[in-house]
Amino acid sequence: MNNETISLLMKHTSVRQFQDKPVSEEQLAAIIGAGQMASTSSNVQAYSVIAVTDSALQTKLAVLAGNQPYIEQCPIFLVWCADLYRLREVSQPYVQGAATYEDSTENFIVATVDVALAAQNAAIAAESLGLGIVYIGGIRNRIAEVSELLGLPELVYPLFGMCIGYPAATNGQRPRLPLPAVLHRNGYNAETTVEQVKVYDEVTTDYLKERTGGASSTPWSALMAKRLAEPTRLHMKDFLLKKGFLQK
Amino acid sequence: MNNETISLLMKHTSVRQFQDKPVSEEQLAAIIGAGQMASTSSNVQAYSVIAVTDSALQTKLAVLAGNQPYIEQCPIFLVWCADLYRLREVSQPYVQGAATYEDSTENFIVATVDVALAAQNAAIAAESLGLGIVYIGGIRNRIAEVSELLGLPELVYPLFGMCIGYPAATNGQRPRLPLPAVLHRNGYNAETTVEQVKVYDEVTTDYLKERTGGASSTPWSALMAKRLAEPTRLHMKDFLLKKGFLQK
Repeated sequence: MNNETISLLMKHTSVRQFQDKPVSEEQLAAIIGAGQMASTSSNVQAYSVIAVTDSALQTKLAVLAGNQPYIEQCPIFLVWCADLYRLREVSQPYVQGAATYEDSTENFIVATVDVALAAQNAAIAAESLGLGIVYIGGIRNRIAEVSELLGLPELVYPLFGMCIGYPAATNGQRPRLPLPAVLHRNGYNAETTVEQVKVYDEVTTDYLKERTGGASSTPWSALMAKRLAEPTRLHMKDFLLKKGFLQK
Repeated sequence: MNNETISLLMKHTSVRQFQDKPVSEEQLAAIIGAGQMASTSSNVQAYSVIAVTDSALQTKLAVLAGNQPYIEQCPIFLVWCADLYRLREVSQPYVQGAATYEDSTENFIVATVDVALAAQNAAIAAESLGLGIVYIGGIRNRIAEVSELLGLPELVYPLFGMCIGYPAATNGQRPRLPLPAVLHRNGYNAETTVEQVKVYDEVTTDYLKERTGGASSTPWSALMAKRLAEPTRLHMKDFLLKKGFLQK
Protein backbone atom coordinates (compact mmCIF):
# COMPACT_ATOMS: atom_id res chain seq x y z
CA MET A 1 0.00 0.00 0.00
CA ASN A 2 2.46 2.61 -1.06
CA ASN A 3 2.84 5.12 -3.82
CA GLU A 4 4.32 8.57 -4.30
CA THR A 5 1.34 10.37 -2.77
CA ILE A 6 0.97 8.13 0.27
CA SER A 7 4.73 8.38 0.88
CA LEU A 8 4.39 12.15 0.82
CA LEU A 9 1.47 12.10 3.28
CA MET A 10 3.33 9.72 5.59
CA LYS A 11 6.45 11.84 5.82
CA HIS A 12 4.69 15.06 6.86
CA THR A 13 6.18 17.08 9.67
CA SER A 14 5.56 20.70 10.51
CA VAL A 15 8.31 23.08 9.40
CA ARG A 16 9.20 26.09 11.54
CA GLN A 17 12.51 27.15 10.00
CA PHE A 18 12.57 28.46 6.46
CA GLN A 19 15.23 29.29 3.90
CA ASP A 20 15.48 32.84 2.63
CA LYS A 21 14.15 31.77 -0.75
CA PRO A 22 10.94 33.01 -2.35
CA VAL A 23 7.85 31.01 -3.24
CA SER A 24 6.83 32.01 -6.76
CA GLU A 25 3.44 33.27 -7.92
CA GLU A 26 3.14 30.13 -10.04
CA GLN A 27 3.73 27.95 -7.00
CA LEU A 28 1.21 29.93 -4.96
CA ALA A 29 -1.39 29.62 -7.72
CA ALA A 30 -0.79 25.86 -7.98
CA ILE A 31 -1.07 25.46 -4.20
CA ILE A 32 -4.29 27.45 -3.81
CA GLY A 33 -5.68 25.96 -7.03
CA ALA A 34 -5.16 22.49 -5.57
CA GLY A 35 -6.88 23.69 -2.40
CA GLN A 36 -9.87 24.75 -4.45
CA MET A 37 -10.30 21.24 -5.83
CA ALA A 38 -11.04 19.78 -2.41
CA SER A 39 -14.61 18.74 -1.72
CA THR A 40 -16.91 21.56 -0.68
CA SER A 41 -20.39 21.21 0.79
CA SER A 42 -22.95 21.74 -2.02
CA ASN A 43 -20.26 23.71 -3.88
CA VAL A 44 -20.56 26.66 -1.47
CA GLN A 45 -16.77 27.20 -1.40
CA ALA A 46 -17.21 29.09 1.86
CA TYR A 47 -13.61 30.12 2.42
CA SER A 48 -11.09 32.79 1.59
CA VAL A 49 -7.35 32.74 1.98
CA ILE A 50 -5.22 35.82 2.50
CA ALA A 51 -1.64 35.60 1.28
CA VAL A 52 0.43 37.84 3.50
CA THR A 53 3.77 38.83 1.97
CA ASP A 54 4.05 42.35 3.37
CA SER A 55 6.80 41.98 5.91
CA ALA A 56 5.48 44.64 8.31
CA LEU A 57 2.14 42.84 8.34
CA GLN A 58 3.86 39.49 8.89
CA THR A 59 5.71 40.96 11.88
CA LYS A 60 2.45 42.21 13.40
CA LEU A 61 0.79 38.83 12.87
CA ALA A 62 3.79 37.04 14.39
CA VAL A 63 3.35 39.10 17.56
CA LEU A 64 -0.45 38.66 17.66
CA ALA A 65 -0.03 34.89 17.29
CA GLY A 66 2.12 34.72 20.42
CA ASN A 67 5.57 35.72 19.09
CA GLN A 68 6.03 32.92 16.62
CA PRO A 69 9.05 34.13 14.59
CA TYR A 70 8.49 31.79 11.62
CA ILE A 71 5.37 33.79 10.72
CA GLU A 72 7.61 36.68 9.76
CA GLN A 73 10.46 34.54 8.46
CA CYS A 74 8.47 32.51 5.94
CA PRO A 75 8.12 33.99 2.43
CA ILE A 76 4.32 33.62 2.42
CA PHE A 77 1.99 33.48 5.39
CA LEU A 78 -1.48 32.27 4.49
CA VAL A 79 -4.46 33.15 6.65
CA TRP A 80 -7.27 30.68 5.98
CA CYS A 81 -10.71 32.11 6.69
CA ALA A 82 -14.19 30.63 6.86
CA ASP A 83 -16.22 32.96 4.63
CA LEU A 84 -20.00 33.24 4.54
CA TYR A 85 -19.85 36.95 3.71
CA ARG A 86 -19.33 36.32 0.00
CA LEU A 87 -22.31 33.95 -0.13
CA ARG A 88 -24.57 36.38 1.68
CA GLU A 89 -23.52 39.32 -0.49
CA VAL A 90 -24.11 37.56 -3.80
CA SER A 91 -27.38 36.08 -2.56
CA GLN A 92 -28.90 39.46 -1.67
CA PRO A 93 -30.39 40.27 -5.10
CA TYR A 94 -32.20 36.93 -5.14
CA VAL A 95 -33.50 36.73 -1.58
CA GLN A 96 -34.56 40.40 -1.40
CA GLY A 97 -34.51 40.71 2.34
CA ALA A 98 -36.17 37.35 3.06
CA ALA A 99 -34.86 35.25 5.95
CA THR A 100 -31.55 33.49 5.32
CA TYR A 101 -29.51 31.18 7.50
CA GLU A 102 -25.88 32.05 6.97
CA ASP A 103 -25.79 32.70 10.72
CA SER A 104 -26.73 29.12 11.72
CA THR A 105 -24.47 26.70 13.59
CA GLU A 106 -24.86 24.34 10.64
CA ASN A 107 -23.48 26.90 8.20
CA PHE A 108 -20.69 27.75 10.63
CA ILE A 109 -19.68 24.09 10.52
CA VAL A 110 -20.00 23.95 6.73
CA ALA A 111 -17.70 26.95 6.31
CA THR A 112 -15.20 25.72 8.90
CA VAL A 113 -14.95 22.31 7.23
CA ASP A 114 -14.74 23.86 3.75
CA VAL A 115 -11.70 25.92 4.69
CA ALA A 116 -10.00 23.00 6.46
CA LEU A 117 -10.38 20.67 3.46
CA ALA A 118 -9.07 23.32 1.07
CA ALA A 119 -6.16 24.15 3.37
CA GLN A 120 -5.15 20.53 3.73
CA ASN A 121 -5.15 20.04 -0.04
CA ALA A 122 -3.02 23.17 -0.32
CA ALA A 123 -0.63 21.88 2.35
CA ILE A 124 -0.16 18.64 0.44
CA ALA A 125 0.35 20.44 -2.85
CA ALA A 126 2.97 22.65 -1.19
CA GLU A 127 4.78 19.65 0.26
CA SER A 128 4.70 17.91 -3.10
CA LEU A 129 6.63 20.91 -4.48
CA GLY A 130 9.35 20.50 -1.86
CA LEU A 131 8.00 23.24 0.39
CA GLY A 132 7.26 22.91 4.09
CA ILE A 133 4.28 24.18 6.05
CA VAL A 134 3.07 24.64 9.58
CA TYR A 135 -0.48 25.39 10.69
CA ILE A 136 -0.77 28.33 13.09
CA GLY A 137 -3.72 28.10 15.47
CA GLY A 138 -2.11 30.96 17.38
CA ILE A 139 -3.86 33.52 15.16
CA ARG A 140 -6.93 32.78 17.29
CA ASN A 141 -5.08 34.06 20.41
CA ARG A 142 -5.97 37.64 19.54
CA ILE A 143 -8.46 36.92 16.82
CA ALA A 144 -10.28 40.27 16.97
CA GLU A 145 -7.03 42.14 16.34
CA VAL A 146 -6.01 39.76 13.55
CA SER A 147 -9.41 40.23 11.92
CA GLU A 148 -9.19 43.99 12.13
CA LEU A 149 -5.64 44.03 10.79
CA LEU A 150 -6.73 42.01 7.74
CA GLY A 151 -9.98 43.91 7.24
CA LEU A 152 -12.21 40.87 7.63
CA PRO A 153 -15.91 41.72 7.27
CA GLU A 154 -18.69 40.11 9.27
CA LEU A 155 -19.31 36.43 8.55
CA VAL A 156 -15.60 35.90 7.90
CA TYR A 157 -13.28 34.53 10.59
CA PRO A 158 -9.64 33.50 10.47
CA LEU A 159 -9.51 29.80 11.34
CA PHE A 160 -5.75 29.25 11.20
CA GLY A 161 -2.62 30.54 9.55
CA MET A 162 -0.13 28.55 7.52
CA CYS A 163 3.54 29.34 6.97
CA ILE A 164 4.87 28.21 3.59
CA GLY A 165 8.45 28.15 2.40
CA TYR A 166 11.50 26.05 1.67
CA PRO A 167 12.49 24.16 4.84
CA ALA A 168 15.78 25.14 6.47
CA ALA A 169 15.37 22.32 9.00
CA THR A 170 12.87 19.58 9.66
CA ASN A 171 11.78 17.96 12.89
CA GLY A 172 11.39 14.28 13.58
CA GLN A 173 7.90 12.83 13.36
CA ARG A 174 5.94 12.45 16.56
CA PRO A 175 4.29 9.05 16.76
CA ARG A 176 0.51 9.09 16.37
CA LEU A 177 -2.11 7.22 18.38
CA PRO A 178 -2.26 3.49 17.56
CA LEU A 179 -4.69 2.83 14.72
CA PRO A 180 -7.26 1.01 16.95
CA ALA A 181 -7.49 4.11 19.16
CA VAL A 182 -9.01 6.13 16.33
CA LEU A 183 -10.51 3.49 14.01
CA HIS A 184 -13.72 1.94 15.33
CA ARG A 185 -15.82 -0.80 13.70
CA ASN A 186 -19.56 -0.42 13.15
CA GLY A 187 -19.91 1.63 16.32
CA TYR A 188 -17.93 3.62 18.85
CA ASN A 189 -15.75 1.50 21.13
CA ALA A 190 -15.11 3.64 24.21
CA GLU A 191 -13.22 0.93 26.04
CA THR A 192 -10.74 0.27 23.24
CA THR A 193 -9.99 3.91 22.55
CA VAL A 194 -9.15 4.55 26.21
CA GLU A 195 -7.16 1.29 26.54
CA GLN A 196 -5.12 2.13 23.47
CA VAL A 197 -4.05 5.42 25.00
CA LYS A 198 -2.18 3.44 27.66
CA VAL A 199 -0.13 1.85 24.87
CA TYR A 200 0.38 5.29 23.34
CA ASP A 201 1.47 6.78 26.66
CA GLU A 202 4.37 4.31 26.74
CA VAL A 203 5.28 5.00 23.12
CA THR A 204 5.26 8.77 23.61
CA THR A 205 7.18 8.56 26.88
CA ASP A 206 9.94 6.58 25.17
CA TYR A 207 9.92 8.98 22.24
CA LEU A 208 10.20 12.05 24.47
CA LYS A 209 12.97 10.53 26.56
CA GLU A 210 14.97 9.77 23.43
CA ARG A 211 14.34 13.14 21.84
CA THR A 212 15.22 15.13 24.96
CA GLY A 213 18.02 12.91 26.26
CA GLY A 214 15.90 11.91 29.23
CA ALA A 215 14.95 15.48 30.25
CA SER A 216 11.27 15.01 29.40
CA SER A 217 9.11 11.93 29.73
CA THR A 218 5.59 13.18 30.35
CA PRO A 219 3.01 10.74 29.00
CA TRP A 220 0.60 12.02 26.37
CA SER A 221 -2.39 11.71 28.73
CA ALA A 222 -0.73 14.05 31.20
CA LEU A 223 0.09 16.55 28.43
CA MET A 224 -3.54 16.42 27.29
CA ALA A 225 -4.78 16.91 30.85
CA LYS A 226 -2.60 19.99 31.16
CA ARG A 227 -3.98 21.29 27.88
CA LEU A 228 -7.64 20.67 28.79
CA ALA A 229 -7.10 22.40 32.12
CA GLU A 230 -5.93 25.58 30.39
CA PRO A 231 -8.63 28.19 29.78
CA THR A 232 -7.51 28.69 26.18
CA ARG A 233 -9.12 31.25 23.87
CA LEU A 234 -12.33 31.56 25.84
CA HIS A 235 -13.06 34.69 23.80
CA MET A 236 -13.91 32.59 20.74
CA LYS A 237 -17.63 32.23 21.41
CA ASP A 238 -18.19 35.97 21.93
CA PHE A 239 -16.02 36.81 18.96
CA LEU A 240 -17.89 34.47 16.63
CA LEU A 241 -21.27 35.70 17.85
CA LYS A 242 -20.20 39.29 17.18
CA LYS A 243 -19.03 38.32 13.70
CA GLY A 244 -22.51 36.99 12.93
CA PHE A 245 -21.91 33.26 13.40
CA LEU A 246 -23.68 30.72 15.63
CA GLN A 247 -26.80 32.85 16.05
CA LYS A 248 -29.12 29.85 15.82
CA MET B 1 3.88 23.29 -11.41
CA ASN B 2 2.83 19.75 -11.84
CA ASN B 3 3.66 16.41 -10.35
CA GLU B 4 1.88 13.15 -9.57
CA THR B 5 0.33 14.42 -6.33
CA ILE B 6 -0.88 17.75 -7.72
CA SER B 7 -2.34 15.94 -10.75
CA LEU B 8 -4.22 13.67 -8.37
CA LEU B 9 -5.56 16.62 -6.36
CA MET B 10 -6.60 18.45 -9.53
CA LYS B 11 -8.61 15.57 -10.93
CA HIS B 12 -10.76 15.01 -7.82
CA THR B 13 -14.46 14.50 -8.33
CA SER B 14 -16.94 12.98 -5.92
CA VAL B 15 -17.90 9.39 -6.70
CA ARG B 16 -21.45 8.19 -6.04
CA GLN B 17 -21.47 4.89 -7.95
CA PHE B 18 -19.29 2.04 -6.76
CA GLN B 19 -18.21 -1.32 -8.12
CA ASP B 20 -19.13 -4.43 -6.17
CA LYS B 21 -15.49 -4.91 -5.20
CA PRO B 22 -14.12 -4.90 -1.67
CA VAL B 23 -11.65 -2.48 -0.13
CA SER B 24 -9.09 -4.54 1.76
CA GLU B 25 -8.07 -4.20 5.41
CA GLU B 26 -4.60 -3.22 4.20
CA GLN B 27 -6.06 -0.44 2.07
CA LEU B 28 -8.21 0.77 4.95
CA ALA B 29 -5.22 0.82 7.30
CA ALA B 30 -3.15 2.75 4.76
CA ILE B 31 -5.96 5.26 4.23
CA ILE B 32 -6.63 5.92 7.92
CA GLY B 33 -2.90 5.81 8.67
CA ALA B 34 -2.36 8.58 6.11
CA GLY B 35 -5.22 10.48 7.74
CA GLN B 36 -3.45 10.25 11.08
CA MET B 37 -0.35 11.95 9.66
CA ALA B 38 -2.23 15.17 8.97
CA SER B 39 -1.45 18.13 11.21
CA THR B 40 -3.29 18.12 14.53
CA SER B 41 -3.55 21.01 16.97
CA SER B 42 -0.95 20.47 19.75
CA ASN B 43 -1.06 16.75 18.91
CA VAL B 44 -4.54 16.36 20.46
CA GLN B 45 -5.74 14.04 17.64
CA ALA B 46 -9.29 14.88 18.61
CA TYR B 47 -11.08 12.62 16.15
CA SER B 48 -12.38 9.10 15.70
CA VAL B 49 -13.50 7.38 12.55
CA ILE B 50 -16.03 4.59 12.44
CA ALA B 51 -15.70 2.13 9.57
CA VAL B 52 -19.17 0.84 8.81
CA THR B 53 -19.17 -2.40 6.85
CA ASP B 54 -22.25 -4.04 8.38
CA SER B 55 -24.74 -3.84 5.55
CA ALA B 56 -27.82 -3.51 7.78
CA LEU B 57 -26.16 -0.57 9.51
CA GLN B 58 -25.21 0.96 6.16
CA THR B 59 -28.85 0.70 5.05
CA LYS B 60 -30.03 2.49 8.19
CA LEU B 61 -27.45 5.22 7.76
CA ALA B 62 -28.39 5.62 4.09
CA VAL B 63 -31.98 6.30 5.15
CA LEU B 64 -31.00 8.66 7.97
CA ALA B 65 -28.79 10.65 5.60
CA GLY B 66 -31.73 11.36 3.29
CA ASN B 67 -31.93 8.17 1.23
CA GLN B 68 -28.53 8.31 -0.37
CA PRO B 69 -28.18 4.82 -1.89
CA TYR B 70 -24.39 4.95 -2.32
CA ILE B 71 -24.03 4.83 1.49
CA GLU B 72 -25.26 1.27 1.40
CA GLN B 73 -23.69 0.39 -1.94
CA CYS B 74 -20.11 1.35 -1.08
CA PRO B 75 -17.94 -1.36 0.53
CA ILE B 76 -16.90 0.88 3.44
CA PHE B 77 -18.75 3.86 4.84
CA LEU B 78 -16.60 5.97 7.13
CA VAL B 79 -18.18 8.19 9.76
CA TRP B 80 -15.71 10.89 10.78
CA CYS B 81 -16.27 12.19 14.30
CA ALA B 82 -14.87 15.07 16.30
CA ASP B 83 -13.84 13.42 19.57
CA LEU B 84 -13.08 15.21 22.82
CA TYR B 85 -14.41 12.29 24.88
CA ARG B 86 -11.13 10.34 24.64
CA LEU B 87 -9.13 13.37 25.78
CA ARG B 88 -11.39 14.02 28.71
CA GLU B 89 -11.39 10.38 29.81
CA VAL B 90 -7.64 9.96 29.77
CA SER B 91 -7.15 13.35 31.46
CA GLN B 92 -9.33 12.49 34.46
CA PRO B 93 -6.62 10.85 36.61
CA TYR B 94 -4.44 13.93 36.22
CA VAL B 95 -6.96 16.72 36.69
CA GLN B 96 -8.81 15.03 39.58
CA GLY B 97 -12.05 16.89 39.19
CA ALA B 98 -10.49 20.31 38.55
CA ALA B 99 -12.04 22.57 35.90
CA THR B 100 -11.30 21.60 32.31
CA TYR B 101 -12.31 23.22 29.05
CA GLU B 102 -13.14 20.42 26.64
CA ASP B 103 -16.57 22.08 26.39
CA SER B 104 -15.28 25.40 25.02
CA THR B 105 -16.03 26.79 21.57
CA GLU B 106 -12.27 26.86 20.96
CA ASN B 107 -11.94 23.13 21.62
CA PHE B 108 -15.00 22.46 19.46
CA ILE B 109 -13.20 24.21 16.62
CA VAL B 110 -9.94 22.36 17.34
CA ALA B 111 -11.70 18.98 17.18
CA THR B 112 -13.70 19.89 14.08
CA VAL B 113 -10.59 21.00 12.22
CA ASP B 114 -8.62 17.96 13.40
CA VAL B 115 -11.16 15.57 11.93
CA ALA B 116 -11.43 17.51 8.66
CA LEU B 117 -7.65 17.53 8.09
CA ALA B 118 -7.38 13.81 8.83
CA ALA B 119 -10.34 13.02 6.59
CA GLN B 120 -8.94 15.00 3.69
CA ASN B 121 -5.60 13.21 3.95
CA ALA B 122 -7.49 9.92 4.00
CA ALA B 123 -9.52 10.97 0.95
CA ILE B 124 -6.35 11.74 -0.98
CA ALA B 125 -4.72 8.48 0.08
CA ALA B 126 -7.83 6.59 -1.08
CA GLU B 127 -7.82 8.37 -4.42
CA SER B 128 -4.12 7.63 -4.86
CA LEU B 129 -5.01 3.93 -4.58
CA GLY B 130 -7.54 4.20 -7.39
CA LEU B 131 -10.54 4.42 -5.08
CA GLY B 132 -13.24 7.09 -5.18
CA ILE B 133 -14.83 8.95 -2.30
CA VAL B 134 -17.72 11.26 -1.54
CA TYR B 135 -18.25 13.29 1.61
CA ILE B 136 -21.70 12.88 3.15
CA GLY B 137 -22.88 15.93 5.10
CA GLY B 138 -26.32 14.31 5.11
CA ILE B 139 -25.47 12.36 8.26
CA ARG B 140 -26.16 15.65 10.07
CA ASN B 141 -29.79 15.58 8.84
CA ARG B 142 -30.80 13.29 11.69
CA ILE B 143 -27.63 13.56 13.71
CA ALA B 144 -29.13 12.47 17.04
CA GLU B 145 -30.33 9.19 15.50
CA VAL B 146 -27.00 8.62 13.73
CA SER B 147 -25.17 9.22 17.02
CA GLU B 148 -27.37 6.81 18.89
CA LEU B 149 -27.07 4.16 16.20
CA LEU B 150 -23.27 4.33 16.40
CA GLY B 151 -23.16 4.56 20.18
CA LEU B 152 -21.36 7.91 20.26
CA PRO B 153 -20.72 9.12 23.82
CA GLU B 154 -20.87 12.75 24.91
CA LEU B 155 -18.19 15.03 23.48
CA VAL B 156 -18.22 13.03 20.23
CA TYR B 157 -20.20 14.18 17.19
CA PRO B 158 -20.35 12.83 13.65
CA LEU B 159 -19.12 15.61 11.36
CA PHE B 160 -19.54 13.89 7.99
CA GLY B 161 -19.59 10.50 6.38
CA MET B 162 -17.40 9.30 3.53
CA CYS B 163 -18.17 6.55 1.04
CA ILE B 164 -15.11 4.70 -0.20
CA GLY B 165 -14.90 2.18 -3.01
CA TYR B 166 -13.86 1.49 -6.57
CA PRO B 167 -15.64 3.93 -8.86
CA ALA B 168 -18.24 2.50 -11.24
CA ALA B 169 -18.72 5.91 -12.84
CA THR B 170 -17.27 9.36 -12.42
CA ASN B 171 -18.80 12.78 -12.88
CA GLY B 172 -17.34 15.73 -14.71
CA GLN B 173 -15.63 18.37 -12.63
CA ARG B 174 -17.60 21.42 -11.68
CA PRO B 175 -15.60 24.59 -12.27
CA ARG B 176 -14.46 26.34 -9.09
CA LEU B 177 -14.54 30.05 -8.25
CA PRO B 178 -11.87 32.06 -10.09
CA LEU B 179 -8.65 32.20 -8.07
CA PRO B 180 -8.95 35.95 -7.30
CA ALA B 181 -12.35 35.32 -5.69
CA VAL B 182 -10.77 33.26 -2.91
CA LEU B 183 -7.14 34.45 -2.85
CA HIS B 184 -6.69 37.88 -1.26
CA ARG B 185 -3.43 39.82 -0.84
CA ASN B 186 -2.37 41.26 2.51
CA GLY B 187 -5.97 41.92 3.48
CA TYR B 188 -9.55 40.99 2.63
CA ASN B 189 -10.77 42.46 -0.66
CA ALA B 190 -14.57 42.47 -0.42
CA GLU B 191 -15.04 44.24 -3.75
CA THR B 192 -12.94 41.78 -5.75
CA THR B 193 -14.47 38.66 -4.24
CA VAL B 194 -17.99 39.84 -5.08
CA GLU B 195 -16.98 41.06 -8.58
CA GLN B 196 -15.35 37.73 -9.34
CA VAL B 197 -18.58 35.92 -8.59
CA LYS B 198 -20.12 37.67 -11.62
CA VAL B 199 -17.45 36.05 -13.78
CA TYR B 200 -18.13 32.73 -12.08
CA ASP B 201 -21.88 33.05 -12.61
CA GLU B 202 -21.27 33.14 -16.36
CA VAL B 203 -18.88 30.19 -16.22
CA THR B 204 -21.27 28.07 -14.19
CA THR B 205 -24.26 29.00 -16.31
CA ASP B 206 -22.42 27.87 -19.45
CA TYR B 207 -21.30 24.70 -17.68
CA LEU B 208 -24.81 23.82 -16.51
CA LYS B 209 -26.33 24.51 -19.94
CA GLU B 210 -23.82 22.19 -21.55
CA ARG B 211 -24.17 19.48 -18.91
CA THR B 212 -27.97 19.48 -18.97
CA GLY B 213 -28.46 20.13 -22.67
CA GLY B 214 -29.93 23.56 -21.93
CA ALA B 215 -32.42 22.35 -19.27
CA SER B 216 -30.66 24.12 -16.43
CA SER B 217 -28.80 27.41 -16.41
CA THR B 218 -29.20 28.82 -12.93
CA PRO B 219 -26.23 31.01 -11.99
CA TRP B 220 -24.22 30.00 -8.94
CA SER B 221 -25.33 33.10 -6.99
CA ALA B 222 -28.97 32.08 -7.38
CA LEU B 223 -28.20 28.52 -6.28
CA MET B 224 -26.41 29.88 -3.22
CA ALA B 225 -29.30 32.21 -2.43
CA LYS B 226 -31.66 29.26 -2.55
CA ARG B 227 -29.38 27.34 -0.24
CA LEU B 228 -28.98 30.17 2.29
CA ALA B 229 -32.75 30.64 2.35
CA GLU B 230 -33.28 27.03 3.40
CA PRO B 231 -33.58 26.46 7.15
CA THR B 232 -31.14 23.54 7.02
CA ARG B 233 -30.25 21.46 10.09
CA LEU B 234 -31.32 24.06 12.62
CA HIS B 235 -31.15 21.31 15.24
CA MET B 236 -27.35 21.39 15.20
CA LYS B 237 -26.89 23.98 17.94
CA ASP B 238 -29.15 22.18 20.42
CA PHE B 239 -27.67 18.83 19.53
CA LEU B 240 -24.10 20.02 20.10
CA LEU B 241 -25.01 21.71 23.37
CA LYS B 242 -26.60 18.47 24.57
CA LYS B 243 -23.48 16.54 23.57
CA GLY B 244 -21.39 18.80 25.79
CA PHE B 245 -19.92 21.13 23.16
CA LEU B 246 -20.01 24.93 22.87
CA GLN B 247 -20.78 25.47 26.56
CA LYS B 248 -18.51 28.48 26.81
